[in-house]
Amino acid sequence: MAKKILMAHGAGGKLSAQLLQEVILPAFDNEILRELHDGAKLGQLAMTTDSYVVRPIFFRGGDIGKLSVCGTINDLAVTGATPKFLSVGIILEEGFDLDALKKIVGSMAAAAREAGVKIVTGDTKVVGRGQADGIFINTAGIGELIDGVNISPRNVRTGMKILLSGFIGDHATTILAGRHGLELPENICSDCAPLNELIDEMLAAEPKIAMLRDATRGGLSAVLNEIAQAAGVGILLDEEKIPVRDEVRGVCDILGFDVLELANEGKIVAVVPAESAEKILSVMRRNVYGRHAALIGEVVTNSAGKVGLRTSIGGVRIVDMPTGELVPRIC
Amino acid sequence: MAKKILMAHGAGGKLSAQLLQEVILPAFDNEILRELHDGAKLGQLAMTTDSYVVRPIFFRGGDIGKLSVCGTINDLAVTGATPKFLSVGIILEEGFDLDALKKIVGSMAAAAREAGVKIVTGDTKVVGRGQADGIFINTAGIGELIDGVNISPRNVRTGMKILLSGFIGDHATTILAGRHGLELPENICSDCAPLNELIDEMLAAEPKIAMLRDATRGGLSAVLNEIAQAAGVGILLDEEKIPVRDEVRGVCDILGFDVLELANEGKIVAVVPAESAEKILSVMRRNVYGRHAALIGEVVTNSAGKVGLRTSIGGVRIVDMPTGELVPRIC
Repeated sequence: MAKKILMAHGAGGKLSAQLLQEVILPAFDNEILRELHDGAKLGQLAMTTDSYVVRPIFFRGGDIGKLSVCGTINDLAVTGATPKFLSVGIILEEGFDLDALKKIVGSMAAAAREAGVKIVTGDTKVVGRGQADGIFINTAGIGELIDGVNISPRNVRTGMKILLSGFIGDHATTILAGRHGLELPENICSDCAPLNELIDEMLAAEPKIAMLRDATRGGLSAVLNEIAQAAGVGILLDEEKIPVRDEVRGVCDILGFDVLELANEGKIVAVVPAESAEKILSVMRRNVYGRHAALIGEVVTNSAGKVGLRTSIGGVRIVDMPTGELVPRIC
Repeated sequence: MAKKILMAHGAGGKLSAQLLQEVILPAFDNEILRELHDGAKLGQLAMTTDSYVVRPIFFRGGDIGKLSVCGTINDLAVTGATPKFLSVGIILEEGFDLDALKKIVGSMAAAAREAGVKIVTGDTKVVGRGQADGIFINTAGIGELIDGVNISPRNVRTGMKILLSGFIGDHATTILAGRHGLELPENICSDCAPLNELIDEMLAAEPKIAMLRDATRGGLSAVLNEIAQAAGVGILLDEEKIPVRDEVRGVCDILGFDVLELANEGKIVAVVPAESAEKILSVMRRNVYGRHAALIGEVVTNSAGKVGLRTSIGGVRIVDMPTGELVPRIC
C-alpha cells in the first residue's frame, strides 16, 4: 500500500476499500462495523455519517448543503430505517462568504423539512486561509429501523431482480460539466434528493426487499460489485435497460468516463424477490424520484462476486470495481 | 455582522455565539436544537457532534484522534447520558502520511476502548494538496440518557456550588507552547481524556446535579457565562480556589492569555446542590481524572447572567464571555 494518501483513497473504488480494510477496520474492529452497511444497525436504531467536500459548492440542482442532508438521509433509508435526527459539523475557511453560508444552511433546512428529519445538534470550526477549501460539511444521522424489514446482502438469492430508481450519471455529469466549462441542456442537473419516502413506499409494498444501496461514489459499478462480493453471488445487468440520458452519455464520451462509475446522489439500487419486482417498480414510478425506475438485471448463480453486463451488441463484459481517481470531490 | 467568516467565528466566544444565533439557529430551528446543550436530548437518547481541526495533530498527552473521541464522549456525558456509539468522518489531504493516519486511528480506538464505546460507522474523503491541512476528523455520538438524571440550566438555583474537576489550561498551554517553541516541564501535557466514568460516579453520588459542562473552547469563562445566561443567575468564583499550575500561569503571562479563557479537553464544571458538594468532591477525587477537583464558587442572586471573580486581593472583577480569536485550532 502507498505510504501517502492519494486522491483515489477517497474516491470509493479499490483504494478506498483497501484503506478501509487495512487501516480503519483493524483499528476499530467490532461486530457492528464489520457489517459495512451504509448505516450501522444498533438494536432498533441505525446510525450513519458522511463528510461532504463537493466542488463547486453550488451546482445545478443543489449545493453542498442539500447534498449533506440528502446523502445521510439516503444512507439511513437504504439501511431500512426511517431517518429521524441529524447532527451537522461545519468546517469553514477564514474569509468564507457569509451569504453563501446562509444559502447553504437554508438548503440544509429545506432538505431536512422535505425529508421530515430534524437537525438537532451541531458544531462549527474555522481554519485559516489556505487550510481548507471554503466549506466542508459532515452530517451524522439516526434513524429507526423499520419493523419486519431486514436489508442485508445475506438475504440476496439467485433469481432476484435488480431495480434502479432512474437515470444514472446526472450528478457527476453536472459537476464535471461545470468544472470543464461544458454547456449542458436545461434538463441535466444533479439528481440530489432525499429518497426516504420513495424507499418507505417500496418497503411498504414489499418488506422482503433483500438489499438497498444508493449509488453514490463509484456509481452503479461500485455498489453492485460490493453487493456481489458481500452476498457471494453473480449479478448480470442488461445494458439496454439501464436508464442513461443521451446528453450524459455524450459527456462521458467526451471526457472518457464510464457512466456506470459515475456518482449519483438520488438513485437507489434494490435487489428484490422476482415475484414482486413489477409491483415494486410500479410503486417506484408513482414517486417523483422513481418515475424512470427500471428493472436492469438479475442475481445469477455463476461468477460469484462478479458483475457482468450484457451489452447491446450481445456480448457480456465484466463490470469491475472502479479503480483510480474517478471524479474527485464529487460529494 | 461581518460579511466574511473570521477566525473568531470558530473560537467559541462572542462571534461564535453570534454566528449560531443569527445564521445557524434561524435556519434549523426546532425545540430540541433550541436547548443548545452540548448534546441533544431525543427521548431516551442523546446525540452530539464535533469536528476536530487541532494543530499540531500530535501533542504531548494526545493527538487529534484521541481528542476526537474524548471530546464527543464528554459532550454526551455532560448531557447526562452514557456514551454508546460513535461515527467517524475523516477528511484527508492528498499526500497525508499513512503511518500518521494509522497512529491516529489507533489513538481513537484506544480512547473508545477506555470509554467503553463502539465506533460503528464512518466515512473517509480525500481532497487535493492545499485544499485541507492534513487531517480533519468529525465524530458524532449517541448515548443513553441516565434514568432520574436531568442536566439542564433550568435546574440551577441560587446557593448551588460550582465544582471543577482539576487544573485548567493544560491543553491550550501544551498546544501554545508547541507552536511558540516554548519548553514546558514534563508534568504539563494536554488533559485530553474520556470523562464518562468520572461523570457516572458523580451522578451516582448525586443524581440531582443541575448542570455539567466540559470547559473546552472558550474555557471556564465561556462555559460559566453560558450557564449564567441560560439559567438567569449570577455566578461568583473564588480565584484562589481555581486549580492552575504555576507553569501554566507562567505561559499565560508570557503570551498574554487569560487562563480562564483557555481550552481544556479533560475538565468538567458541575453546578451541584450545596448540601452534596463535599460528597461529590470526594467521589471526584477518587477518580484519576478528578484527583484535583475543587469547589471554585457558587450561584448567587445578584448580577443575573454574569460571572464574577473574587480576586486574591479581595476585589471582584467581571469575567466576560471571551471575545476575539482566542487560540485558533485548539481542538
